[in-house]
Amino acid sequence: MAEESTTSAPPALSVDVAALTELLDGRYADVRRTVRDLLPSYASVLEDAETMPKEEFRERVREVVLEIASTGAVGMGFPKEYGGGGDIGASIAAFETLAYGDLSVLVKVGVQFGLFGGAILQLGTKRHHDAYLADLIAGRLLGCFAMTETGHGSNVQALGTVATYDPDAGEFVITTTTPSAGKDYIGNAAKHARVAVVFAQLEVAGEGHGVHALVVPLRDESGVTLPGVRIEDDGQKMGLNGVDNGRIWFDGVRVPRESLLNRFADVTEGGEYVSDIESSGRRFFTMLGTLVQGRVSVGAAGVSASKVALTIAVRYALQRRQFDTGADDGAEQLLLDYGLHQRRLLPRLARTYALHFAQEVLASRLHDVFSGITPDDESRQLLESRAAGTKALSTWLATDVVQECREACGGAGYLAVNRFAALKADTDVFTTFEGDNHVLLQLVGKGLLTNFSSDFSDLDQLGMVRFVAGVAVETVLERTRAHRLLQSIRDALPGGGDSWDTDSGLRDPQYHLAMYRFREEHRIGGVARRLKRGIDSGMNPGEVFSRVQDHVIAAARAHVERIVLEAFVEKVAAMEDGDLKLTLNAVCDLHALAGIEADAAWFIEHDRLSTQRSKAITREVGDLCRRIRPVARELVDGFAVPEALLRAPALISGESA
Amino acid sequence: MAEESTTSAPPALSVDVAALTELLDGRYADVRRTVRDLLPSYASVLEDAETMPKEEFRERVREVVLEIASTGAVGMGFPKEYGGGGDIGASIAAFETLAYGDLSVLVKVGVQFGLFGGAILQLGTKRHHDAYLADLIAGRLLGCFAMTETGHGSNVQALGTVATYDPDAGEFVITTTTPSAGKDYIGNAAKHARVAVVFAQLEVAGEGHGVHALVVPLRDESGVTLPGVRIEDDGQKMGLNGVDNGRIWFDGVRVPRESLLNRFADVTEGGEYVSDIESSGRRFFTMLGTLVQGRVSVGAAGVSASKVALTIAVRYALQRRQFDTGADDGAEQLLLDYGLHQRRLLPRLARTYALHFAQEVLASRLHDVFSGITPDDESRQLLESRAAGTKALSTWLATDVVQECREACGGAGYLAVNRFAALKADTDVFTTFEGDNHVLLQLVGKGLLTNFSSDFSDLDQLGMVRFVAGVAVETVLERTRAHRLLQSIRDALPGGGDSWDTDSGLRDPQYHLAMYRFREEHRIGGVARRLKRGIDSGMNPGEVFSRVQDHVIAAARAHVERIVLEAFVEKVAAMEDGDLKLTLNAVCDLHALAGIEADAAWFIEHDRLSTQRSKAITREVGDLCRRIRPVARELVDGFAVPEALLRAPALISGESA
Repeated sequence: MAEESTTSAPPALSVDVAALTELLDGRYADVRRTVRDLLPSYASVLEDAETMPKEEFRERVREVVLEIASTGAVGMGFPKEYGGGGDIGASIAAFETLAYGDLSVLVKVGVQFGLFGGAILQLGTKRHHDAYLADLIAGRLLGCFAMTETGHGSNVQALGTVATYDPDAGEFVITTTTPSAGKDYIGNAAKHARVAVVFAQLEVAGEGHGVHALVVPLRDESGVTLPGVRIEDDGQKMGLNGVDNGRIWFDGVRVPRESLLNRFADVTEGGEYVSDIESSGRRFFTMLGTLVQGRVSVGAAGVSASKVALTIAVRYALQRRQFDTGADDGAEQLLLDYGLHQRRLLPRLARTYALHFAQEVLASRLHDVFSGITPDDESRQLLESRAAGTKALSTWLATDVVQECREACGGAGYLAVNRFAALKADTDVFTTFEGDNHVLLQLVGKGLLTNFSSDFSDLDQLGMVRFVAGVAVETVLERTRAHRLLQSIRDALPGGGDSWDTDSGLRDPQYHLAMYRFREEHRIGGVARRLKRGIDSGMNPGEVFSRVQDHVIAAARAHVERIVLEAFVEKVAAMEDGDLKLTLNAVCDLHALAGIEADAAWFIEHDRLSTQRSKAITREVGDLCRRIRPVARELVDGFAVPEALLRAPALISGESA
Repeated sequence: MAEESTTSAPPALSVDVAALTELLDGRYADVRRTVRDLLPSYASVLEDAETMPKEEFRERVREVVLEIASTGAVGMGFPKEYGGGGDIGASIAAFETLAYGDLSVLVKVGVQFGLFGGAILQLGTKRHHDAYLADLIAGRLLGCFAMTETGHGSNVQALGTVATYDPDAGEFVITTTTPSAGKDYIGNAAKHARVAVVFAQLEVAGEGHGVHALVVPLRDESGVTLPGVRIEDDGQKMGLNGVDNGRIWFDGVRVPRESLLNRFADVTEGGEYVSDIESSGRRFFTMLGTLVQGRVSVGAAGVSASKVALTIAVRYALQRRQFDTGADDGAEQLLLDYGLHQRRLLPRLARTYALHFAQEVLASRLHDVFSGITPDDESRQLLESRAAGTKALSTWLATDVVQECREACGGAGYLAVNRFAALKADTDVFTTFEGDNHVLLQLVGKGLLTNFSSDFSDLDQLGMVRFVAGVAVETVLERTRAHRLLQSIRDALPGGGDSWDTDSGLRDPQYHLAMYRFREEHRIGGVARRLKRGIDSGMNPGEVFSRVQDHVIAAARAHVERIVLEAFVEKVAAMEDGDLKLTLNAVCDLHALAGIEADAAWFIEHDRLSTQRSKAITREVGDLCRRIRPVARELVDGFAVPEALLRAPALISGESA
């Protein structure tokens, strides 16, 4: 700390909260405001989550979801002709804002409108849209999305449920073939769903065609389970107990041929399987790709949960005093004036901003792809990769931020009357659902190694190993040549890299980006080299993959970190000059440098950071925390979490401790 | 991965589970077995925690605690003449083992026998022992430990409750002076406690003497709150809902003079305050020091919770298959055969072993100090520091391990029927109670900087800053001279340090220890230098402390990491040669190297690690994971968590997925 900075002291920061909120709200400010205005009416659900028995709370959440549906706030992504809003970007903005409130409500909305409704919309054709969309948007028909099985969570291509076509009856026969093929953790299944979109191995005339989706009725109008269907309650969960998750088994359940969601493949009246996509793997991933909105939404919810937690923890740290300050009046010091407390909260606040802007870019890409603005294959592939990667980082952010904020609020954070208990329990599973984060990053890694070519979308892990170790290795290595990358960092440094050991340029976003890009490219190249060496040494592909797996994950993570930082840097660069830009510049610097600091060993090992400069970065992170400290309150107020939703009476009530 | 190791392939590992359990059980094998045999009878409490309403569950937990008390399993630390077992070490072993079961039961045991009973025993004298011990050990008298206040969690010297001596009546008058001085989060207070040990500022004849403890009745025999006492329920919590935490306010409650727990200070019949310890700060810390068993116990519980989580996650990873292996039979690969999964679970398993042995040493030191074997001041000071530091690391371990294990078990880990939900919710507050972990590490840091001299035990943060920056700085720097430390690392390397850049010596525990010691000493010296520079530059001590705080924490952490590693290394070194020693050697190496890897940037920045050797350590961690993988099941089975307590039917039922 006592090393003097070589640069002159930067100006003090100030923030106009309303302008900050406007910036964060972006294109869909109206939608976000509408949902923020709506949410306080349902603030009591936060208390109900704590006090109501499970069954009662499930009914309460169902009611709230239906009420919210009646406002139109959750059907924005559906076509107007069925009562939707016809704007996908708006639907993401609404969902993201809804995540300030109770998360059982949010997840039940996600199950009904995102997963169930999304599958009908994206995998079905007009006959399904006409039959279901208007009812499901209005909440008259509740459904579920039955993909995951007890034995198959991540490897959904290997599902064990089978749909066999019976040409004589013109029907599919749905069967759960083994105990581990039972559908499991299916939201809405235990109580409320009347129909399910069921994912099953399609068999036509003795031939398997891979996993397809069919609409299968589960219950009659009065809620009684239909013959051949067996449903069991998943029971109490760590959190999200307003959502009725359950297991479903099918014993020869028959549905008409038209139940097949047939946008990408069909069975003709004559009993013939037809599809424009030849490879069954590629067909399946094309289907899955249309459901990408779910991942975008969960990531958005993770960022919103982080905002709620940080709002509470920062405000608490600005009320709570601890220990003697040494001042004459003997007053204790505010928690947030402690260097350690700043270190715990402010880089996490900066990272939450980064992921907010990354989610904004992602939602905009989603909108463009699904609104026909950029419907090409490449845009789709990039969207899917970006969605998978951002989901992983945003949900890990939530787990990390909620935990740290709880600890930073001490014992009071442990009381259920404060929101941390629910936030922690409810967000815990975000890292798992809509795809386990590690599996998602593997998917991103595969895309990076195969250059996102859709020709390889159906490669499994081992196919990927063989492909990259074979023909692709040269291409990947050429793309990631170290000298080219190195030059880009040199160019970003003042004096073309001569000032390697000084503090200068530490706050230059071009330097940050060059570092993040170097790491990404070098990591990808490293994986390609390792795969090739492994195969060349005669190891079997499974063993090669097992050994390289953590490098694949690290490469994918480096890739996503880079696009997240880019989103933040570009956002700030596009702002008008002024106080707000100055502040967000500092927040962006803090995010970027804290990221380099956290991975400093790697940068040093790869000669991209001198030990002197590494220490300078650590000092700079501390300096930035101190610089941002005076506007910490404004930075969380900018999130505009409605006061009624903070629910932290033991933490941020009127009384200063 | 394809870099060939320069050393020859080490022999395959094998483990005799019974022998491993015997080793882990150590000196108190009988006690541990007794508790393990007892626990399955109470396995149903795990289900009750999920299904019973709060009030009912509280009563259930109370019953179980009383039943367990009747077996004598929880009174082992009390003197035999009052019905205890007279063996402090045994009481820690029992508590640690009890932590395999429901944690509400554990914490209620801790409140009654550790906190309440411990305060009576340690702060009281014969009159209090005679009056209370027999009843409280038998569970006939339930009590609580009323220290924490709403406004004062960490800085307990600043408590706002006041006990004023009324010489005419020969009574103390207990008063809650402000809203923030209400006692809060007090276990047993909301329902079951009939008396409280209340910590309050003692005022005698208009003079304040600092915080003292008094026995204050709260409720009559029938459970009705007494006049002047107001109690409020803290309500639902994130977890531990079988413990009835509450708030207590006192409005002029009168207790006789003899209620003062007078081991360290007293008020005479004549109304005179007397104490052998002159400084009120030192007196208070002496009192607190006698309560160190609570910290030892919570740390032990953290390690036990980690063992339960790892047992479930490792067994799940040895049943669950995922994705194609590329083998001819098309079988999916076991989760634990994936490199990434090994990386997620096995270093955490190794660290759990390390903290097990660190807790064993700590419990033994506690026993020696409190059994009169090493009752000297220095042993006490070292014990308190070790207890504070180990508590922080053991409870952070639990938070980290439980979270990673939950994620590694996917969606099934989220169901309340599996233990993760309860483990996560119940252990969350371990990092906060018995002292916030960061505050505890600050305490450790203060001890390091003042050389654990009891003369400075009452220095506050700012006193510490002034003291170290002044006279102590030279002493600290002399103790931590870099050249001396450096030499010890050189000596540990083959060829006296010439082999700096090779893989050799990577598995030498002396090398690991030298690295950990260097980091510790260098970090301590760095803090001293920073404090001095800060004060010399004219900054006020509060600002200096704020800026140096994260360095203090880092130094303390480095210190505790070193003593943890030492405990592990010494344990293994003392073992007879054989398979078990070979295995634990590998586990110890994995722990040590994963620790260096996690802090590689620091070691490189301080010239203690070349980038080549840093990369070699990363490879070695991967190699060790692969080497330990075949005995992973045995390593968790050695913990001997009773099968009935695993409660993970959706994860490790008979059926292989």
